[in-house]
Amino acid sequence: MDRLEHYRQCIQKLLIEDSKIAPINGEIEVETIFDKEKDRYLAVDLGWDGHRRVYNCVFHLDIKNGKIWIQRNQTDRQIAEELVEMGVPKEDIVLGLQPTYAREHTGFGVA
Amino acid sequence: MDRLEHYRQCIQKLLIEDSKIAPINGEIEVETIFDKEKDRYLAVDLGWDGHRRVYNCVFHLDIKNGKIWIQRNQTDRQIAEELVEMGVPKEDIVLGLQPTYAREHTGFGVA
Repeated sequence: MDRLEHYRQCIQKLLIEDSKIAPINGEIEVETIFDKEKDRYLAVDLGWDGHRRVYNCVFHLDIKNGKIWIQRNQTDRQIAEELVEMGVPKEDIVLGLQPTYAREHTGFGVA
Repeated sequence: MDRLEHYRQCIQKLLIEDSKIAPINGEIEVETIFDKEKDRYLAVDLGWDGHRRVYNCVFHLDIKNGKIWIQRNQTDRQIAEELVEMGVPKEDIVLGLQPTYAREHTGFGVA
């Protein structure tokens, strides 16, 4: 399989898996949003907790210049490690949540 | 033009317009994420304010059962009104940010 196509499938698999875990509150749903043209992939919790609006982007991953950027991860899942286990080389994963100056010390990609 | 296709184009136009307004801080970019298969449309600000990570979903609109749901609007733009001006009937716009019991009093769609 083409390298980028493999990356796309890994990302979608992670997010779809996550979206199947039912939130504790039945009024909250998990939406996956996959922009396959621009290679941007999100999972968002949204709904209501009683009268309180809930809206939270849980995951956001992009593919830019051949690398997977983790832009957001609001869980305790080590998704960079999970991607490595799925065959993505560390240097092709950028921890977007780490500031640029810190990335070179992470063992993952820098940009 | 097909009604839903018109709605899709209205939503994308609003979000693309918004994404062209450069954030004050040059290290923040606006990403549009359009899932055309599931009809979910977002605009997200992301980047850095110095050492502080910035991540904020500015707009999120879905099309569900033939209606436009405004799931998120972090601006002072009256996008429901803008959609009406673009020819979308009020009853086809659901203010997802309003709790269900309040929607019938908004003059917009209820579900």
